[in-house]
Amino acid sequence: MTSEFVKNLTPQLVEWRRTLHSLPELGFMEYITTYRIGKELEKMGFTLHIGKDALQEDARLGVPKKEALDAHEEKAAAWGVEKEWLEKLSGGNTGLVATWDTGRAGDHIGFRFDIDALPILESADESHLPCKHEFSSGEPNVMHACGHDGHATIGLGTAKYIAEHTNELKGKFTLLFQPAEEGGRGARAMVAKGWLDDVDYFYSGHIGIHSYPVGTIAATTTGFLASTKYNVSFKGVSSHAGMHPELGKNALLAATTAANNLYAIPRHFDGVTRVNVGRLTAGSGRNIIPEDSYMEIEVRGETHAIGDYMAESALRIIKAAADMHDVTCTIEPVGVTEVMTCNEELIPKIQEWCAPSELVTEVIPSVPVSGSEDASFMMNKVQEHGGKATYMLFGTKLDFPHHHPQFDYEEGVLAAAVDTFASIIKGGSSNG
Amino acid sequence: MTSEFVKNLTPQLVEWRRTLHSLPELGFMEYITTYRIGKELEKMGFTLHIGKDALQEDARLGVPKKEALDAHEEKAAAWGVEKEWLEKLSGGNTGLVATWDTGRAGDHIGFRFDIDALPILESADESHLPCKHEFSSGEPNVMHACGHDGHATIGLGTAKYIAEHTNELKGKFTLLFQPAEEGGRGARAMVAKGWLDDVDYFYSGHIGIHSYPVGTIAATTTGFLASTKYNVSFKGVSSHAGMHPELGKNALLAATTAANNLYAIPRHFDGVTRVNVGRLTAGSGRNIIPEDSYMEIEVRGETHAIGDYMAESALRIIKAAADMHDVTCTIEPVGVTEVMTCNEELIPKIQEWCAPSELVTEVIPSVPVSGSEDASFMMNKVQEHGGKATYMLFGTKLDFPHHHPQFDYEEGVLAAAVDTFASIIKGGSSNG
Amino acid sequence: MTSEFVKNLTPQLVEWRRTLHSLPELGFMEYITTYRIGKELEKMGFTLHIGKDALQEDARLGVPKKEALDAHEEKAAAWGVEKEWLEKLSGGNTGLVATWDTGRAGDHIGFRFDIDALPILESADESHLPCKHEFSSGEPNVMHACGHDGHATIGLGTAKYIAEHTNELKGKFTLLFQPAEEGGRGARAMVAKGWLDDVDYFYSGHIGIHSYPVGTIAATTTGFLASTKYNVSFKGVSSHAGMHPELGKNALLAATTAANNLYAIPRHFDGVTRVNVGRLTAGSGRNIIPEDSYMEIEVRGETHAIGDYMAESALRIIKAAADMHDVTCTIEPVGVTEVMTCNEELIPKIQEWCAPSELVTEVIPSVPVSGSEDASFMMNKVQEHGGKATYMLFGTKLDFPHHHPQFDYEEGVLAAAVDTFASIIKGGSSNG
Amino acid sequence: MTSEFVKNLTPQLVEWRRTLHSLPELGFMEYITTYRIGKELEKMGFTLHIGKDALQEDARLGVPKKEALDAHEEKAAAWGVEKEWLEKLSGGNTGLVATWDTGRAGDHIGFRFDIDALPILESADESHLPCKHEFSSGEPNVMHACGHDGHATIGLGTAKYIAEHTNELKGKFTLLFQPAEEGGRGARAMVAKGWLDDVDYFYSGHIGIHSYPVGTIAATTTGFLASTKYNVSFKGVSSHAGMHPELGKNALLAATTAANNLYAIPRHFDGVTRVNVGRLTAGSGRNIIPEDSYMEIEVRGETHAIGDYMAESALRIIKAAADMHDVTCTIEPVGVTEVMTCNEELIPKIQEWCAPSELVTEVIPSVPVSGSEDASFMMNKVQEHGGKATYMLFGTKLDFPHHHPQFDYEEGVLAAAVDTFASIIKGGSSNG
Repeated sequence: MTSEFVKNLTPQLVEWRRTLHSLPELGFMEYITTYRIGKELEKMGFTLHIGKDALQEDARLGVPKKEALDAHEEKAAAWGVEKEWLEKLSGGNTGLVATWDTGRAGDHIGFRFDIDALPILESADESHLPCKHEFSSGEPNVMHACGHDGHATIGLGTAKYIAEHTNELKGKFTLLFQPAEEGGRGARAMVAKGWLDDVDYFYSGHIGIHSYPVGTIAATTTGFLASTKYNVSFKGVSSHAGMHPELGKNALLAATTAANNLYAIPRHFDGVTRVNVGRLTAGSGRNIIPEDSYMEIEVRGETHAIGDYMAESALRIIKAAADMHDVTCTIEPVGVTEVMTCNEELIPKIQEWCAPSELVTEVIPSVPVSGSEDASFMMNKVQEHGGKATYMLFGTKLDFPHHHPQFDYEEGVLAAAVDTFASIIKGGSSNG
Repeated sequence: MTSEFVKNLTPQLVEWRRTLHSLPELGFMEYITTYRIGKELEKMGFTLHIGKDALQEDARLGVPKKEALDAHEEKAAAWGVEKEWLEKLSGGNTGLVATWDTGRAGDHIGFRFDIDALPILESADESHLPCKHEFSSGEPNVMHACGHDGHATIGLGTAKYIAEHTNELKGKFTLLFQPAEEGGRGARAMVAKGWLDDVDYFYSGHIGIHSYPVGTIAATTTGFLASTKYNVSFKGVSSHAGMHPELGKNALLAATTAANNLYAIPRHFDGVTRVNVGRLTAGSGRNIIPEDSYMEIEVRGETHAIGDYMAESALRIIKAAADMHDVTCTIEPVGVTEVMTCNEELIPKIQEWCAPSELVTEVIPSVPVSGSEDASFMMNKVQEHGGKATYMLFGTKLDFPHHHPQFDYEEGVLAAAVDTFASIIKGGSSNG
Repeated sequence: MTSEFVKNLTPQLVEWRRTLHSLPELGFMEYITTYRIGKELEKMGFTLHIGKDALQEDARLGVPKKEALDAHEEKAAAWGVEKEWLEKLSGGNTGLVATWDTGRAGDHIGFRFDIDALPILESADESHLPCKHEFSSGEPNVMHACGHDGHATIGLGTAKYIAEHTNELKGKFTLLFQPAEEGGRGARAMVAKGWLDDVDYFYSGHIGIHSYPVGTIAATTTGFLASTKYNVSFKGVSSHAGMHPELGKNALLAATTAANNLYAIPRHFDGVTRVNVGRLTAGSGRNIIPEDSYMEIEVRGETHAIGDYMAESALRIIKAAADMHDVTCTIEPVGVTEVMTCNEELIPKIQEWCAPSELVTEVIPSVPVSGSEDASFMMNKVQEHGGKATYMLFGTKLDFPHHHPQFDYEEGVLAAAVDTFASIIKGGSSNG
Repeated sequence: MTSEFVKNLTPQLVEWRRTLHSLPELGFMEYITTYRIGKELEKMGFTLHIGKDALQEDARLGVPKKEALDAHEEKAAAWGVEKEWLEKLSGGNTGLVATWDTGRAGDHIGFRFDIDALPILESADESHLPCKHEFSSGEPNVMHACGHDGHATIGLGTAKYIAEHTNELKGKFTLLFQPAEEGGRGARAMVAKGWLDDVDYFYSGHIGIHSYPVGTIAATTTGFLASTKYNVSFKGVSSHAGMHPELGKNALLAATTAANNLYAIPRHFDGVTRVNVGRLTAGSGRNIIPEDSYMEIEVRGETHAIGDYMAESALRIIKAAADMHDVTCTIEPVGVTEVMTCNEELIPKIQEWCAPSELVTEVIPSVPVSGSEDASFMMNKVQEHGGKATYMLFGTKLDFPHHHPQFDYEEGVLAAAVDTFASIIKGGSSNG
């Protein structure tokens, strides 16, 4: 009975989660996080693939600058990551793949758990659970505000179930602990390494999104958008704003004009569009015509074609804004996600497999979402060769939305999610 | 003969300048700079007024945040600023006033020398003199890129002349070593303390501006603009840009809309106008509707009335931009300068007094400028009670404009400027 | 057999359509159009309700100015509209309601046909059918570019069927020939008069929209958006642009800033949004700061709540744009449509009833659309008291989209549509 | 004595002015105005040069479209302009040159009087003098709101003085009654015809500008700006705004983005800049993505170089705005004026010559202005070969600025201006 196992594991799940939460790391800098996860998996007996064995280096997008990586590697070394690990992870090759073979013929099942944090300063409000229980982020301006600490924990719990029930199971399991999901930067590199090439069933999912009660899960989701992310730099010419405004070429005005017009890209008959200028910085001093500006933007669309329409429109607007203010621009693609479609055939199976669970109390067939996920690359790869894939939701009450400084979730969702995956494994890969 | 004295002092001038240049400090953080200047003046025998004796604390504008001040005070302590000095300067009460009384009846002459640096990363180009001679800024992102290292040096040279020729002089001398000229933040606080209340003649000036040869000076300048500086913060509501764009209140769009419209404030029949958004930062992450944005702006006008027109227009536009995007804004005035008019009567006097100088080879009566200067507060205060005041230029070839990472000047200008002031003192305050 | 009747009527349908097409009239100015339709219905024996008997005067929106109405009434009089008719229609109370009672108990069935034209200059291209057959618009800048000439014709054909088959039918029929559908201005006024209060079944529809073949119809449509239309006037102060730009208050900049920001209203998670600034005029002469500007805008949303969100956002942006440029604004609501949902129960009935038709070759159950329709007010009123309502499409190949100067349709659609309604009447109200 | 003559002429001046005021005509459509002026000059005995004898047809800028010209020519014919005149003026070749030769050697003196009106609806306010005395514009939306009715009248008065005092005078006189001064469109074409090639002294001027009392005149003016005028058309693709916004290419957004950025062209250190979007029209209907837009703009600069800088910046911005919204644009130059500098040597002469006048009570040497004038082409041509030229002001109280619907002036200024020119003629060309 899966629920019994998971209930016993719950204190361990909470501990794992809090430990990971207290030391969040940004995408491609998850040195300590990867190490911690790896050491647990090692103890369970998994075969580990780390660094360039886990992902294809040149298929990563939006890798931090060398200085940032170096600084964080030093920190990880000081913290205690073993030298041998650090060498493998070095240069932003974080994340790992853990594999398990029951030795019995059967399906190859893949799971993906994302592990990175966000550049957000965690709230110090006393009502915030991590404050009350003292496991808040120890890193200024970095926070697990999207629940990936929970995702990694669910991965460890799922791994534990596999390891301890190997005799009852058949087939193979591949657990992908993926770096840099935020911004759609890491999944492609794991796909490129071939990990999904022969996966028969693929499962991933997210804590929260909608505010369902703990125990309610969604077997599939719809509406994940194709997205493209760009970093944009405008380069003009500075000048003294009082003396010689006419000698300046104003990179700030190029950026502000681009921003205002990006949001005005026409809506589309065929479906949802999104656009956001998430960050903009420009200029160096009050009395200087700004020479430099920089934007982080993203566009999304409900279909591949709409995604392309948005991206092409954005590029055209940015270039014209540069021309308008006589500055140059460079546009760097730093992330991409695809449209993804869950296999509906999995709905009745998941409902059936989860029926005996005490922790999974309701299975909603399908729930709409408007985000973007680079698990899409994995799902599309699996489906390409005839495998089945889904992206699920695990219910929890949410007082604050994802990416909010006070984002938090009910820790009960961890057990419910592990029981979901355990039930799926038991239901789908039972030996006998 | 002043020139003889100045020529002998020249190696000292160069040393002072290079020492100050190598350790630049931003406005109201000139702890080490003030200390260094003060110790030199102490040696010469000047009476020193520092901290709240030099300026009126609550008349300062744009004082850095406490954390920044504290951090820099610690650094100054570690560097070796004496505890007694640091206590007086603490909290951003930097700069000092040095007074000298000859004991003989005569005019009260005031000089102002500004001492602060700029938030600019100094060029590491080998052709840049401070690199070649190894006195580049030791502070990342802080640089003497407007020649105030030279201004402070000219102040020390002028002080030295007074101290060593006191027997030949009459009247009183007040030397204001002013903090935080950049942004128009410090002068008002010194005026408020009363230092200009009975000054009969007031002199200040600037290295460069126009690229005249060393030895050429301007007796007066015209066209300094009234200016007002604001820091503007917009506060909206963040939201996931893919899931719930409609729940966000976009502080970035408020700022970009404000910026685009600020530059479009109508020109004015009565004279010159200027507007600049020198810095803009907004947003925290690519997929988050920006909750915060921040701008550093300034407006200028050729007359008091135009200055007011520009400031009122700017405030109206900023508030409406906030309303438009349903966010709030706070607008903090952080600097102000006045229109200033030099007394033309001083032109023939300066020409006469400087005629014997070997270092001052040409005195241009008047030169037009379009900048802003908070020496305006001092000049206007002096002129209010019938005193005479001027703002001069000291020629030097310029390869790069002020505020440029490669800004530099010919060091010969230091001697020419000291000789100018020495000649004025000798000519105007000769004892008998 | 309905198709036989309709086939025989076809030459008459084409004549009606071409006559109406050649004299298009804008909304609330359909004096001649109403008169022509009314005289035909009179001949058939319908009871007519015209002017204030047909619609509630003060519930109309966007009524043209008195001068425009007066001028067009004069024209209508000169053309030959009888005085008695003109008196009733005067002041923009155009359109009419035709009622028919079989005298036998049965359902009350309502039909709506819109009759107004658009402010578009009809193409003079030889390939354009109305040119080739010489029934192009005789009014400069007015054109039936949305097929309402056809809709009125379908109404006459449907009326003819009722009149000639009254013995075979039971119940009552109400035919609404509605003015001013464009802009969502007329339907509300007919609803307010009570015409829909006891209608059991309500049918309306549109020629074209999608480019299906003639004979294909859609039983229902989805996705009609709530919409609100505004006319916006900004009033500033003019000034000589060279001499005194600072004395002007620029109404053009208020409008352009509003326009740019209106398109940037954030997308919405819950569904489709639309915004358009369809017309903008500003200024009087090149060297004058524009004192006046004017915009015609519309916003739409997939739900009532999204519609409100769009309208509130638009109002906020417009007011702030006025504040920003120190001008005043007046915002006049000139049209509104509601969300509407067709009763799906009608799909199998319509399919059954149309099955025998030779002219209706395929009945698509439902087709998505993203327009707005003020038939929504009628449908919502009918459904409120338990009636059933639908909005259908009648297929025709389209070479140019609706509202295009070369918009045209295959005239075969007229017969197909009349046969659709005749089949519905025969199927649903057969006497015995 | 000139003043006696002028006083006697005053009732005639008022009559001329009011007659011209009551029938204003736009630039290059001054058929009736030219005819009226010509008939008066004919009576006085001047030699007339009209149509293509007066100006070089292909050097005109911004000529109205053929339909507008044709319509107005028809109107002029109906009004009573003789056929022979109309044939010469046809096609927008309006304006005339009147020459007079005293037969005695002497200087060649040129005068320029502009005669066109503005596209402004004259105020019907009772306090407006033309209303009170019933000589308001009979043309809707056309008005003499810049005083050119007065200028033409002053021209007639000056001509009358010459004709009646020919025996006392020497040399030759050329009076240019110029069409289309508004927008800087007509002067170039008269210059191109050679009329200024051997003029020794050239005088022109303006009523009002500053609000001086009647009798006060300015001998010279400064600060006239170089200007360039463009008509800009954007061409996109229309689409139904609700159904298919993504298929539209929005010409309105191109225009609004261009407008907002044009006003933000950086100010210039070297002098005055101006920019205005005086008219903007876009779109055809509320629910249609605008396919067309149109702007009338102008830029100005204090020097030739600043004028070029403004024009180049404007062109760059407009083109980029088109690119940004994926539309095309055509930019037509429709007017241009040059910088002009009055000859200061004329100041003492004018002061001396006007000293005896009873009507000219004060001669201000020079007055600053910030407008643009195509008299600049004439002045620059005269000065090119060593002639002297000036542009004067004639004082009158102004209750409303130029180009205002209630613009008016004191009619006493007419006599003062005629006496100014008569005094100049008498003073400068006295026979003996």
